[in-house]
Amino acid sequence: MPKLDLAAIPQTNVTGYPPPFDAAVDGRWYRRLAPVAGLTMMGASHVTLLPGAFSSQRHWHRGQDELVVMLSGAAVLIDDHGELPVGPGDVLTFPAGVENGHCLHNRSDEPCVFVAISAGSREADSGEYSDIDMVFDAEGYARKDGTRYEATRIP
Amino acid sequence: MPKLDLAAIPQTNVTGYPPPFDAAVDGRWYRRLAPVAGLTMMGASHVTLLPGAFSSQRHWHRGQDELVVMLSGAAVLIDDHGELPVGPGDVLTFPAGVENGHCLHNRSDEPCVFVAISAGSREADSGEYSDIDMVFDAEGYARKDGTRYEATRIP
Repeated sequence: MPKLDLAAIPQTNVTGYPPPFDAAVDGRWYRRLAPVAGLTMMGASHVTLLPGAFSSQRHWHRGQDELVVMLSGAAVLIDDHGELPVGPGDVLTFPAGVENGHCLHNRSDEPCVFVAISAGSREADSGEYSDIDMVFDAEGYARKDGTRYEATRIP
Repeated sequence: MPKLDLAAIPQTNVTGYPPPFDAAVDGRWYRRLAPVAGLTMMGASHVTLLPGAFSSQRHWHRGQDELVVMLSGAAVLIDDHGELPVGPGDVLTFPAGVENGHCLHNRSDEPCVFVAISAGSREADSGEYSDIDMVFDAEGYARKDGTRYEATRIP
């Protein structure tokens, strides 16, 4: 059915990030919407950031556009330009190939909810993390010198 | 900048629909986000439906996934299953190739706001309208017998 029954879709906080980088997203609970909905040309997640949680390590993608629609609560957008409060109704866009590492941080006392959509080839994607010694590709994670972490990206 | 300044993006209610099918979307005011944001792998529109307006003629796509995030106000989702009220926080998904014609209708006294995202090849896309004698492809609109309308799809 077109209207998703969000409450019926399992939530997870699983991450492929190797330690210690996984701790920042421990309070990121998300529902993968595309597989449930039958979408094959975009990725979509319904995300709840608990107080203190980050949406990701600060990163950018070479091969995927990203778009975020803020639904409720408050977060801080952190990118190369600095920090910016964002809230319900805001739309955030991160075009493929723009080397502006970004993430959201919930510094409030309430959950923050948003929908994140991606498009482009996941298999051909790669990118970098701005603040830590990590890059990613379709296979997983590596240090900036190319040595791999023992970690696999979550589909 | 990742956070879009929505108020600074021009709004339009232009449509490529031939008359009389254009009247239904006269109160659909939208901002095309992808060109402004530099997104090349997805389409995205920020849409305000005035009272009485439809989001589109009821239709489905062969070649594009669509996803709608409801932000404010109330609308009725009309599809082959019937009618369903939708509102803020709801996520609606329309996978490519699923022949379930859909649209939103604002039957309230207040504007209704949503973000609509699409992915897939626009050039290879085509689809059909459920309630009227019209189909679409990358070039524009035709009757179901194949004769063309003198109308061009809006990019």
